[in-house]
Amino acid sequence: MNAPLVNDSLLRALLREPTPRRPIWLMRQAGRYLPEYRATRERAGGFLEMCTNPQIACEITLQPVERFPLDAAILFSDILTIPHAMRLGLAFETGEGPRFDRPVRSAADIARLFVPDPASDLRYVVDAVALIRRELRGRVPLIGFAGSPWTVATYMVEGGGSKTFARIKRMMYGAPRDLHRLLELLARATIAYLNAQIAAGAQAVMLFDTWGGTLTPAQYREFSLQYMAQIVDALTRRADGRIVPRIVFTKGGGAWLDRIAAIGCDAAGVDWTTGLAAARAAVGDRIALQGNLDPAALLAPPEVLRAEALRVLADYGPGPGHVFNLGHGITPDVDPENVAVLVDTVRGYRPPA
Amino acid sequence: MNAPLVNDSLLRALLREPTPRRPIWLMRQAGRYLPEYRATRERAGGFLEMCTNPQIACEITLQPVERFPLDAAILFSDILTIPHAMRLGLAFETGEGPRFDRPVRSAADIARLFVPDPASDLRYVVDAVALIRRELRGRVPLIGFAGSPWTVATYMVEGGGSKTFARIKRMMYGAPRDLHRLLELLARATIAYLNAQIAAGAQAVMLFDTWGGTLTPAQYREFSLQYMAQIVDALTRRADGRIVPRIVFTKGGGAWLDRIAAIGCDAAGVDWTTGLAAARAAVGDRIALQGNLDPAALLAPPEVLRAEALRVLADYGPGPGHVFNLGHGITPDVDPENVAVLVDTVRGYRPPA
Repeated sequence: MNAPLVNDSLLRALLREPTPRRPIWLMRQAGRYLPEYRATRERAGGFLEMCTNPQIACEITLQPVERFPLDAAILFSDILTIPHAMRLGLAFETGEGPRFDRPVRSAADIARLFVPDPASDLRYVVDAVALIRRELRGRVPLIGFAGSPWTVATYMVEGGGSKTFARIKRMMYGAPRDLHRLLELLARATIAYLNAQIAAGAQAVMLFDTWGGTLTPAQYREFSLQYMAQIVDALTRRADGRIVPRIVFTKGGGAWLDRIAAIGCDAAGVDWTTGLAAARAAVGDRIALQGNLDPAALLAPPEVLRAEALRVLADYGPGPGHVFNLGHGITPDVDPENVAVLVDTVRGYRPPA
Repeated sequence: MNAPLVNDSLLRALLREPTPRRPIWLMRQAGRYLPEYRATRERAGGFLEMCTNPQIACEITLQPVERFPLDAAILFSDILTIPHAMRLGLAFETGEGPRFDRPVRSAADIARLFVPDPASDLRYVVDAVALIRRELRGRVPLIGFAGSPWTVATYMVEGGGSKTFARIKRMMYGAPRDLHRLLELLARATIAYLNAQIAAGAQAVMLFDTWGGTLTPAQYREFSLQYMAQIVDALTRRADGRIVPRIVFTKGGGAWLDRIAAIGCDAAGVDWTTGLAAARAAVGDRIALQGNLDPAALLAPPEVLRAEALRVLADYGPGPGHVFNLGHGITPDVDPENVAVLVDTVRGYRPPA
C-alpha cells in the first residue's frame, strides 16, 4: 500500500483541473548535469547498467526530487528498453549514442520479433517503478514513459541514431507493409509495457515521439500518430482510484497539435519552436499542454533565465492546463544552480488577476 | 555579353508569372550522388579545393545540368565562404563536416572580424559565377546563394556543426548585443557578396537558413529573419534587364511562412514537414513557393517516387508560383536514375484543368 499523494498538482494540471500554482518537472531532470548522477554512473559502470538495476534506477530517479522542489518524478529509464528486451543487442557507446548489434532491416527480421512480457523480459523496469513509488512516499507523482513506435523503430531499423533516417524511410517508401507490421508490434509491446508500469505504480505516462517531426504531415499521421492513438486508447485509465493522465510529445510536431489533441490523450508536450499561446489556440480546451522553455535557456545568466521562464508562463496565459517543462531534455552542460533558479521562478509565479 | 536565356521558367515561376510547366531544380543537385562529381572531387583533392577553384566549381555546377533536363543551375559553393574569407581557418574533415580553427567566441573575436571584399577575398566565387554563366550559354538561369547570417554565425561560434547550439545560444541569452554585432556584420558581408554574384551573372539568389528552425518564434524574428530582411532589401533588383528573384529558405520554418512572406522576398523554400497547400494558404498570393519533396523519397522505388512527386505537385494546386524542389539537399546514397525519374515526372506534369 503506497502512501497517499501529498502534491497532486501535476495530475490535476494534466487533466485541466485548477491548481494553486503551475506544476513543474523537467525532461531528463535525472541526468548528467547532476554531480550525484555522475557519481552513481561511475559506480554502476554504464548507462544500461543503471537502467537495468532497479535500486540504481530508483536512486537516480529520486536525485532531482531530493535536490529541487519539483512536482513530479519521472522513471529513470530509456526509450529503447523494448527493443533491448527483444534481444537486438543494445549498447550505449560513450559519446556515440545507442547501437544495436542486430538491426531490423527486412521482413524476416521483423517476423522474428516478439512482444516482450513486462513481467519477465522487462521485470527490472516494473520493479524500479514499484520501488520508486515506495521511496517517493507520496511526495509527488511518478511519471512512467515509453518511446513512440515510430521513434523506437527508427533506432531498430537504422541500428542507432541517424541524421537522415535513410534506412527506415527506404522501408517506409519501399515496403510500407513491413514497416506497419513492425509498428503494430511495437504498439502492442508498448501497451503491455506502459500498463505494467501503471500496475506497478506509475501515476501518469508519457510517449516520447522524438523523431515524428522528420515526417511529412501525411506520413506522421500514418506512421506515428496512428500508433500512439492505439496506445493511448488501450492504456489503463484509473489506478489507485485516480485517472492516469497520458501525455504525447512529438518533437517538431507543433503544427500537428490539433491532430494530437484528437487522439484522446490528456496532454501534449510542446517544444520551444511553437509558442504556447499559438499551441493553446490550436488545441482549445481539449487537452493540457506541457512545455516549452528552450533547454538552452538554462545556459543563460540567472536573470535572463528568469525572464525567459516568465515569458513561457505568460505566453500560456490564465486558467488551468499548463505543466511547465522544457521543450526538450536538460543538457549535461547545465549548472544545477540554474535549475534551482528555474524551479523557484515557476513556483513563485502567480498569473496576473 | 552573355547569351539570351532560352528557358526562363524558373525566373517566371519565382515571380508568380505563368509558365508552360512547373520548373524543377534540386538542392545539392551537384553533389556526391553523381559519379562525375566524385571523380572531379578525387582529382581536386577536397571540398574546399573544389569551391575555391573557378574552373572546377564551374565544371561541377554544370554536371547535373548536362545529365538531366533541369530548369536551373545553382552555383557550386558553400555557405561558409564568407567566414572562410574572414580567415577563421576553415577545413572540411571527411565525415566530420566543417571546422574552424579560430571560432568566434567573444566580443573581442567579433571586433576583429571584417567585411570581406568580394572582388578580392571572394574573387574565386565571382569568377566562378561569370564562368558558369558563360558556359551555360543561356540554357537555364544560374542561381547564386549565401547562408543566412544566423546559420553562418552558428558555425562560426560553435566552431563547426552542432546538435544543441549551446555556444551560440549562450551568447544569444548572455550577450545578445555581441551576437547582434556579429549578425549585422554578416548581413553586410552577405549583401556585398550576393550583389557581387548578381553583378557577375547570378540571375536569382537564395538565402539558406538551415538552422533558423532551432529558435523560438520570437528569437527567429530577432536573430534570423530580421537580418535576412535587411539582405533582401539591399539586393540589386535587376540585372540584364530582368528582375533577380530572391528566395528565402528556413528549414523547419513552415510555421513562419507568413512572416517570411512579409519581408519582401519573391519566394520561400518549404521543407517536407509542411504541406504545400497549407503553405500556400499561409502566404496567399504574396510570394512563390519552392519545394518540398522529402529527399528520402529519392530512395524509393521509381513508381513510389513518381507518386510522391505527383502528390507534391497536386498539393500545391493550380496556378503559377511553384518551383518544384526537394525539402532539403539530395543525399549521397541516391541513385542518379531516380533523379532522372523525378525530373521526368515533374516535366511531364500537367495540372488537371
